[in-house]
Amino acid sequence: MKVYIIGIGLIGGSFAIDIKSAFKESEIFGIDQNNSHLQQALELGIIDHKAILEDINKAEVVIITIPVNSTLTILPRVLDLVPDDCLVIDAGSTKQKLCAKVNDHKKRRNYLAAHPIAGTEFSGPKAAIANLYRNKTNIICEVEKTAFKLQEKGLEIFSKLGMRIRYMDPASHDKHIAYVSHLSHISSFMLGKTVIEKEKNEKDIFDMAGSGFASTVRLAKSSPAMWTPIFEHNKENVLETLKEYISNLSWFQKLLEEDDFEKVYAEMEAANRIKSILNGIDR
Amino acid sequence: MKVYIIGIGLIGGSFAIDIKSAFKESEIFGIDQNNSHLQQALELGIIDHKAILEDINKAEVVIITIPVNSTLTILPRVLDLVPDDCLVIDAGSTKQKLCAKVNDHKKRRNYLAAHPIAGTEFSGPKAAIANLYRNKTNIICEVEKTAFKLQEKGLEIFSKLGMRIRYMDPASHDKHIAYVSHLSHISSFMLGKTVIEKEKNEKDIFDMAGSGFASTVRLAKSSPAMWTPIFEHNKENVLETLKEYISNLSWFQKLLEEDDFEKVYAEMEAANRIKSILNGIDR
Repeated sequence: MKVYIIGIGLIGGSFAIDIKSAFKESEIFGIDQNNSHLQQALELGIIDHKAILEDINKAEVVIITIPVNSTLTILPRVLDLVPDDCLVIDAGSTKQKLCAKVNDHKKRRNYLAAHPIAGTEFSGPKAAIANLYRNKTNIICEVEKTAFKLQEKGLEIFSKLGMRIRYMDPASHDKHIAYVSHLSHISSFMLGKTVIEKEKNEKDIFDMAGSGFASTVRLAKSSPAMWTPIFEHNKENVLETLKEYISNLSWFQKLLEEDDFEKVYAEMEAANRIKSILNGIDR
Repeated sequence: MKVYIIGIGLIGGSFAIDIKSAFKESEIFGIDQNNSHLQQALELGIIDHKAILEDINKAEVVIITIPVNSTLTILPRVLDLVPDDCLVIDAGSTKQKLCAKVNDHKKRRNYLAAHPIAGTEFSGPKAAIANLYRNKTNIICEVEKTAFKLQEKGLEIFSKLGMRIRYMDPASHDKHIAYVSHLSHISSFMLGKTVIEKEKNEKDIFDMAGSGFASTVRLAKSSPAMWTPIFEHNKENVLETLKEYISNLSWFQKLLEEDDFEKVYAEMEAANRIKSILNGIDR
């Protein structure tokens, strides 16, 4: 199986590692604008060969793992270039704009719109790890628009990588993912900003930070190149969640100002329900 | 060494476990309002004996590990009861009100005000673990107000438990800890609230949540009984950090609304600096 991966970073590189070990006869070709990343991926043994976009006319599977704005540009061109029986998968964190963009493409049936909910706060080929996708959820959108045989091929790959499949329409995907992923990132980025600004002249202060702070601010290490286009693609949903978050924080502020510590207690107790919800997410 | 621990939960229980293994000749007495917790701690082997407050007239060390409002009430009484050569330590997350409360107590020199920056989001004796304090920072306030011999005794305990000591005045402690700990908790509690409220009728949605969400919302599992009095004690500092956080989130909202994605990128890139700051905190 000839697999071409466009974008050999954390996500693409981790796909490469797992596909190579799950499909013994597979050959992994890496395509990346960043030549030093590509060279690194080759030296790390993550890919078998370097390639360029035009080579995908020989591909059996193409996996696009680049920021969503770049995917939006490249996806129609990829579909133009691939053979008729080639499966094209993306792994973008937003789905509505991508699905809309290729809705009328003559090779729409070659494309399987996917969002594997997996990652770390690191990036680049060195961040790629084995089993990143094991026991993770993979959301597939508009599955009915993909050719049946290519659905099967995609599901075989996801299944061998250990993923749980959920089907969803692109609009619902983008709406809900804003709550359970995109908002967390903004919350964390701005927490980082607040503390860095306040403590910029007091480096010793970070000695006071414990694992709780580290956990809450972990996502502030994420790549701006990946996240800026996600917020752009999903602007309306993200704004809705952000406004609700700010309003809840302002409500908490008001309770503190009014010394209403009974309600402060009740708010935290209600949020404790996240314990049971999180079961199964925590690693 | 006869050690009396008031409050046998995560913090007190973890002290008990480590002190027992570091000081072979030590005897651990547990005091707790919650009799079933006390019984549990005995059965788990965390404490050697159950005790009541009046027994501390035989103590060599008393460690108070209960919510800060209860510590505020009990600390003067504990100092009244203990023998002249007994060391009294607390582990509260706020220090100003506690230090002020006993400033003029005739046994002020028996008290060492401490804040070990360690914990998990769990509570109760079952949450107690060995080595919770290893390589963690312990902030000691007003060390000069503690008798020299008792300072030594306290430092010996902290050192055997593997802690790093930092000295700080209570006002600075409370101000900075609001940024690197208290704000994280509010951010996480309100993130939990925002998502729970939005998704209350759509349980499937949490299948979409990944490890990033879990990390950001982890502190929302924390105990309201512990955190309400912390916010009450440190109200002014917490309000200051919370207002700055809300203002930064509102600024991010404005950038999104104005499609200023260059600045969105720049904001996230600036927050990435947290990477280097966090080195050494992450577990």
